[in-house]
Amino acid sequence: MKTKKVGIITIGDELLIGQVTDTNSTRIGQILGKEGIRVLRKWCVGDRAEEILYALHEAEKMADLILITGGLGPTKDDITVKTLSEYFGAGLVFHEGAFANLSRMLEARHVPVRDMHRQQCVLPSNARLLDNKLGTAPGLLFEEKGKIWVSMPGVPYEMEYILEHGVMPLLRDKGFNQGFSQMTILTAGLGESEIAHRIEPLIEGMPEEISLAYLPSLGSVRLRLSGQSSDPQALANKIRHFGDIIIQELKHHVCGTGDGNVSQMLGQVLRDGKLKICTAESCTGGSISRMIAEIQGASDYFEGAVIGYSVDSKKEILGLNSHILESAGIVSEQTVREMALGACRLFHADLAIATTGYAGPTGGTEESPTGTIWIAAGNEKHMITRRISGGMDRIRNIERASALGLLLAWDWIRQYGKL
Amino acid sequence: MKTKKVGIITIGDELLIGQVTDTNSTRIGQILGKEGIRVLRKWCVGDRAEEILYALHEAEKMADLILITGGLGPTKDDITVKTLSEYFGAGLVFHEGAFANLSRMLEARHVPVRDMHRQQCVLPSNARLLDNKLGTAPGLLFEEKGKIWVSMPGVPYEMEYILEHGVMPLLRDKGFNQGFSQMTILTAGLGESEIAHRIEPLIEGMPEEISLAYLPSLGSVRLRLSGQSSDPQALANKIRHFGDIIIQELKHHVCGTGDGNVSQMLGQVLRDGKLKICTAESCTGGSISRMIAEIQGASDYFEGAVIGYSVDSKKEILGLNSHILESAGIVSEQTVREMALGACRLFHADLAIATTGYAGPTGGTEESPTGTIWIAAGNEKHMITRRISGGMDRIRNIERASALGLLLAWDWIRQYGKL
Repeated sequence: MKTKKVGIITIGDELLIGQVTDTNSTRIGQILGKEGIRVLRKWCVGDRAEEILYALHEAEKMADLILITGGLGPTKDDITVKTLSEYFGAGLVFHEGAFANLSRMLEARHVPVRDMHRQQCVLPSNARLLDNKLGTAPGLLFEEKGKIWVSMPGVPYEMEYILEHGVMPLLRDKGFNQGFSQMTILTAGLGESEIAHRIEPLIEGMPEEISLAYLPSLGSVRLRLSGQSSDPQALANKIRHFGDIIIQELKHHVCGTGDGNVSQMLGQVLRDGKLKICTAESCTGGSISRMIAEIQGASDYFEGAVIGYSVDSKKEILGLNSHILESAGIVSEQTVREMALGACRLFHADLAIATTGYAGPTGGTEESPTGTIWIAAGNEKHMITRRISGGMDRIRNIERASALGLLLAWDWIRQYGKL
Repeated sequence: MKTKKVGIITIGDELLIGQVTDTNSTRIGQILGKEGIRVLRKWCVGDRAEEILYALHEAEKMADLILITGGLGPTKDDITVKTLSEYFGAGLVFHEGAFANLSRMLEARHVPVRDMHRQQCVLPSNARLLDNKLGTAPGLLFEEKGKIWVSMPGVPYEMEYILEHGVMPLLRDKGFNQGFSQMTILTAGLGESEIAHRIEPLIEGMPEEISLAYLPSLGSVRLRLSGQSSDPQALANKIRHFGDIIIQELKHHVCGTGDGNVSQMLGQVLRDGKLKICTAESCTGGSISRMIAEIQGASDYFEGAVIGYSVDSKKEILGLNSHILESAGIVSEQTVREMALGACRLFHADLAIATTGYAGPTGGTEESPTGTIWIAAGNEKHMITRRISGGMDRIRNIERASALGLLLAWDWIRQYGKL
């Protein structure tokens, strides 16, 4: 079976000088990957015609589909459109429909329509426009020489909108996702090598067409069984068979199957168990709360959070005992327990997640150096605590403690949620 | 002036499928950019020899310096090393010194020395090793044909260590850091096209060697003036001149200059004004709190947050009046004001940021449909409020409201912070 090849071109000086991290190509890889479409190469070039042309020529050599992001928008640093028209030898024409859309959108936002907006609708004559409900620049689709090019704005949610609504349906139509089947299993509490050690003997007979990938992230590992076949139904059955073997072996380390992240899985078990959760965060600064709240319908089980950044706020709002704070220390198991209990009382919740630590890059004591974070999940009956020792990287420490906080709550529910 | 050209090659299937976002090339761009060294192109390829060779050949065509990350380490299918040795036609030899270093490091970590560690020291004969104090894989430096190649591990802090300590001194020696100058201006509250409309007539006389880029994100636009010249002092003066014209025109829409994001700028004005801030969040779920807490040293001005997700928690913890909640509605200007005031009282803070809204994709009323979010910043003396109307995209609504919340606080401090 001939697999279609995909290349990504990201355009922007800001990507080269490191002012912006390219998350667009990450999202593209994820969205395409969910349907079995693999990205083969990426090029990143600056906002200059010769650079964009270089990438276009290189991508055309190998890819069936070329996804381009960046360099579409109202101001003059946007030369992508001109370069595409040059590349295809197509003239630039005023697209009436695009201008009507744009004017409507600007009107709704009470932004005056200006010359540069008209200019933004002067686009290559061979471009088909892809609707962008979230911004002013439409996506541009080109089909030439049996290949597809799509140029999208660099603003992440606009890019994603066009990709999901304009591009993916077309790719399905064209059979880019042919015969693909996959199953993903989210696990928690085991490392990649431990999982491999346990499951690989059991799946020795797995056909070659199925590949197993380990996708580790902070505190959890997602396993993906996937393949592509001319008999997708038979493939799906085989994947299911080996997936079930893995689930049986890893038992309670399996958080769930599907694309959901840990917050979603946690939301599901909270809803199933009719449990209410809250958080009391110090060093994670609201990160756990945000991860819970991001999930649609979180208000069914999420009561709220107290972020006690100063010592006083910890004491007053969470009702922490000054003696405990002083004797055990702000960053200690006892304090993190007390924080969780305080939050349970305050929010009348069934369980709380709490964190206290030195996120870095400075702070800490001899006993609890920078990067030491205590995490708790539970209530007055049962409490699980854990201490992690991170490095000096503040963002990484916050992310790791947040992920582990959610996993601790998930584990608590598994153990005590039905009591 | 002949500018040295830099290319980056990032290697890893995980980067193509979107499992990992490439932050390494961002950091490289930043670190090089601080000394005026510009990255011209980036290639990202998978863990296969033919793919790596493609990138090596392409990079050699244009670059004086090629920085490679990924594909060095103990467990990875280590094909980068083999491919480099093939590329340079150099044999693989056992590097005694590298093994001595590695053994010392493993010993200190109480990790037994295994065969795979010995194997890790079999490296191209023409490689000079660059010290990696933070991991087991050294950087590899190659100087051939008047060009430089550096291969570094993909682990971000290891890469950064080698870059800062091994690569940058060499680049300074070789004169890579010549003649670059830039200035960035962070603005808030104006769209890209509005800014362009206002400033472009004023900078018509700007020399061609200076380029202006617009870098929009939620609620703010960063402007970057940059160029490279054989007379860097004259260039810097010209950039400064036009930067000042822009700042004067955009006045209070300018949050600051430099690379800081809105949270950092806000942190700076809070610290300068000796002001303490807190948040009371509903639909943003702790996102604003997290953005404030992520900044190093936030404990100097951040008191904490209450995330009142349920109605009861809003009432009880923030002390909201039931009558107001019922008459004005949970998503209303009056409620968001009361939330901010409640948080100020609770945390004894000088100002609070508050949010309440329907983040979506469901929820809402006729008056306040899905996506309606009220934001407030202030205290009992002065309060700024704003209503935003988003769409159904929950994450986007949360992000937008959070960004605007920070900007509102910034605006409040500008107006009232000195009272």
